[in-house]
Amino acid sequence: MYQLYYYPNNASLAPHFLLYHMGLEYELLLVDKKSNAQKSADYLKLNPAGRIPTLIDNGMAIFESPAICIHLCEQHPEYGLIPHLGTPERPLFFQWLAYLNNTLQAELMVRYYPHRHTNDESTIPNIIAAQDERISEALTVIDEQLAGKPYLLGEHLTACDFFLFMLAEWSLPVKKSPMHFPHLSAFLMKMAAHPTVQAVCTIEEMDLTPFNGDGGGDSGKN
Amino acid sequence: MYQLYYYPNNASLAPHFLLYHMGLEYELLLVDKKSNAQKSADYLKLNPAGRIPTLIDNGMAIFESPAICIHLCEQHPEYGLIPHLGTPERPLFFQWLAYLNNTLQAELMVRYYPHRHTNDESTIPNIIAAQDERISEALTVIDEQLAGKPYLLGEHLTACDFFLFMLAEWSLPVKKSPMHFPHLSAFLMKMAAHPTVQAVCTIEEMDLTPFNGDGGGDSGKN
Repeated sequence: MYQLYYYPNNASLAPHFLLYHMGLEYELLLVDKKSNAQKSADYLKLNPAGRIPTLIDNGMAIFESPAICIHLCEQHPEYGLIPHLGTPERPLFFQWLAYLNNTLQAELMVRYYPHRHTNDESTIPNIIAAQDERISEALTVIDEQLAGKPYLLGEHLTACDFFLFMLAEWSLPVKKSPMHFPHLSAFLMKMAAHPTVQAVCTIEEMDLTPFNGDGGGDSGKN
Repeated sequence: MYQLYYYPNNASLAPHFLLYHMGLEYELLLVDKKSNAQKSADYLKLNPAGRIPTLIDNGMAIFESPAICIHLCEQHPEYGLIPHLGTPERPLFFQWLAYLNNTLQAELMVRYYPHRHTNDESTIPNIIAAQDERISEALTVIDEQLAGKPYLLGEHLTACDFFLFMLAEWSLPVKKSPMHFPHLSAFLMKMAAHPTVQAVCTIEEMDLTPFNGDGGGDSGKN
């Protein structure tokens, strides 16, 4: 039995996809972001970075969403969500997971929490405008990687695909929606129809209609 | 034989430490950042993100510094720079590598390239001031993790320690130098005296005197 400290549509979403997809026993523990519970003394003992998610595995706390994803994949290799050691796909898994995490996710964080990156609130619109461009550049790199491939690493679904879906959902309100990128939008429509994504997004009360391919991208803020 | 596309004291430094530490055969290929060679058409074919480093392993290109580190560690497990599968230390390795990469490194990138994160250059000082605080918060989390431990994960040197040394070097000019943190500064002095760090920093013509413990921290910009 795992425990996942989570908040709906937060960085806990990718680990949640994996727990569900693998059919593992898990308990969801809500971290009330609205009351800043991720900075409470009790939570900081588990996760000194004070962020969501944290996974508890047999009493051991593991934080950082990509690390939790890798851990679940390595503990349950039979689901094939991480390429085996010694295969050429394995370094590409870590490569794309790192890119998603340190670039697309990092740029999204600056976009949504710009006040953390300036000491003058009047400059926030300048940051958001720049971030929309940065996010668009990262989505372009990902879109090109998906050309002619069903999944980010090629033929097989991996944890990177669930991680990408999470970040793409967060990217919907930016100036150029991920649904405006040809290969990425096809990938997202396919992922949104996946039973794991559908079930977990129902649990987390998330709206998947922007991914239903009926021109949802055009109703965005572009 | 590996090839590492590098630039001195860039994100190629951590992979360079590992290649040297493991005594592997490698060739250094300079990416001339001054002429923006990382955005050249030839380099983008290897690394569509247009960043340094890229590792070539038997003709296969791998980018993203943490992914290259993981790859080298997994290919050469006899050096013990990544904990074995199934050990409790293994998820903590990925946890701290992710934290270093998506938090300390990401905040440093905004600090050193603030013009990428605003469409108004006059707001750059506001960003730098905020980033100095963000970087200090991340260094505090790392400093607390190092309390009572010789290395980031505990008793044993891992790739995380070389990655941290790289980022700490980059953090020297920020408002509160890493040498002002008690556990972190002791760790950095020890790492700076490590034969691998000394040899690679000599090759990359880097100055290690800020880590020699003679009050270098106090001569910083704090």
